Amino acid sequence: MTKFAVVGTGALGGFYGGLLARAGSDVHFLMRSDAEFVKANGLRVDSKLGDFHLPSVNVYASVQDMPKCDCVILALKSTQNHLLSDLLPPLLHDESIVLVLQNGLHVEQATREVVGPGRVAGGCCFLCSNKVGPGHIRHLDYGKILMGPYRGLDDTEAGPSMERLAKIQAEMVAAGIECQTTESLTWARWRKLMWNIPFNGLSVILNSSTNRIMEFPDSRALAESIIREVRQTACDCGHFIEPEFVQYMMTHTDEMVPYDSSMRLDFLAGRPIEVEAIYGNALRAADRANVSSPIMRVMYQQLKFLAHQRHVK
Amino acid sequence: MTKFAVVGTGALGGFYGGLLARAGSDVHFLMRSDAEFVKANGLRVDSKLGDFHLPSVNVYASVQDMPKCDCVILALKSTQNHLLSDLLPPLLHDESIVLVLQNGLHVEQATREVVGPGRVAGGCCFLCSNKVGPGHIRHLDYGKILMGPYRGLDDTEAGPSMERLAKIQAEMVAAGIECQTTESLTWARWRKLMWNIPFNGLSVILNSSTNRIMEFPDSRALAESIIREVRQTACDCGHFIEPEFVQYMMTHTDEMVPYDSSMRLDFLAGRPIEVEAIYGNALRAADRANVSSPIMRVMYQQLKFLAHQRHVK
Repeated sequence: MTKFAVVGTGALGGFYGGLLARAGSDVHFLMRSDAEFVKANGLRVDSKLGDFHLPSVNVYASVQDMPKCDCVILALKSTQNHLLSDLLPPLLHDESIVLVLQNGLHVEQATREVVGPGRVAGGCCFLCSNKVGPGHIRHLDYGKILMGPYRGLDDTEAGPSMERLAKIQAEMVAAGIECQTTESLTWARWRKLMWNIPFNGLSVILNSSTNRIMEFPDSRALAESIIREVRQTACDCGHFIEPEFVQYMMTHTDEMVPYDSSMRLDFLAGRPIEVEAIYGNALRAADRANVSSPIMRVMYQQLKFLAHQRHVK
Repeated sequence: MTKFAVVGTGALGGFYGGLLARAGSDVHFLMRSDAEFVKANGLRVDSKLGDFHLPSVNVYASVQDMPKCDCVILALKSTQNHLLSDLLPPLLHDESIVLVLQNGLHVEQATREVVGPGRVAGGCCFLCSNKVGPGHIRHLDYGKILMGPYRGLDDTEAGPSMERLAKIQAEMVAAGIECQTTESLTWARWRKLMWNIPFNGLSVILNSSTNRIMEFPDSRALAESIIREVRQTACDCGHFIEPEFVQYMMTHTDEMVPYDSSMRLDFLAGRPIEVEAIYGNALRAADRANVSSPIMRVMYQQLKFLAHQRHVK
């Protein structure tokens, strides 16, 4: 049985780690502020898959106290990646892999630089989930993980084997998590960026929920232009996405319940926003492929300014 | 002596009209809310050119009461142009011309559609001025008018003769107004757009003064990209602007006193903003010339949304 560490037990890590622990997997949670509370009170997950409470979980306030694990699920926001060189090495034995469940493109690179090649996988999570209190997660909708080996900035390195990932996938599926594997992680990440790049950024820049953006003709046209540009950038970077996926993303967004993007929630709460992981890394990929991507660049510059000004004020 | 009407006696009309009246020109002011106050108390202008007070001015609350004039100075914001078909005809005799002192590109077209061809001139005003109270204008800086004949959307119509404009120019100069004429009004307007398009829009979208935008590296780079795009659009539309003008605009903005653009002041005060005059008309000119201008288009769509949302809330 795989021994899991969950680094970052928030909306995402608490949900997936909680499901694994409920199913009997061997899960070890790193928490910061909530560690004492969860030791005393356990972990609570309210979910459309069924509410559950785990009275006794393996919870730690420091990686120094944790066992070495076979699979480290990295569920911190990428804005915390400066902590990785402290957090990851104590958790790893020679055969450990790290599964990076963060938003953006090439977000695995920071982990790769800490732990070395061949042992990093990444996963795109399609999850609506919030932390509503200490040790208390509310799962609203979705939940799929699409994971694959991370092959470096130029997609040429060897990552963990697909057999290794299939074993983790099987444990996740047994825990009730919808989980699939792909050999094309970067392609999967570009597809997800076709939603994140338009709607995370516009919801912050325009200070609006996605449904208002979709309702008004000019902002709707802008969102569609951005989706097209992200698709074209992905294609020019060598990751073909079918043209029909543009309209699929528009329709999918029309059908979503009114929703505040995670970037808007972070921005409104005064937390750092994932501009570099989502926009900066996509632009740097575009630059390496000599693609101009003008709208993505404007959004990056606007978001950098807005994030900076918030701290200046 | 030219008989002037000033339609819209705010920060701009009050300043230029006040200078003309002080110099003894025959000036007739249309006011709305301030008419009674100015009849009783006169018009006050605080200016770095010297403060002055005109105890007795020709002021009207309705165009029906005004004399027909030789030169109608249109100093309303372009967001009021739906009023022109009521306001202008009563003021015109067969030889009258209208001098449109509004921001944007082809803003004269709305006037041209009301008064017919051959009698519309336009002026770019480089003016920092505010209305600070009823009949009370504060002139902060600058003040030059660069005016020329309006030649229609495709720049082929005949406008008023340069001789006619030279006569008006002479009266303005005699009144202390820095005033020049140009045969290339559209070219002059594109040059001014190289400031208005980046800084009016960004100051609203980023909710910031221009100096903060210039200080932070990403927003500074964005401003420069926009200036370049406006220049390229102007060139592609047949109005050549020298490449050095990009750096001139950056340096000029660096040297300005911290300044809130008129669009930001309008936005914060809940007044309509001139999105169509500045962005919409520039984009329509770009479309006619088959130029893509992606950043201008993003800003247009963002500003349309923000202006709309403000009214929805």
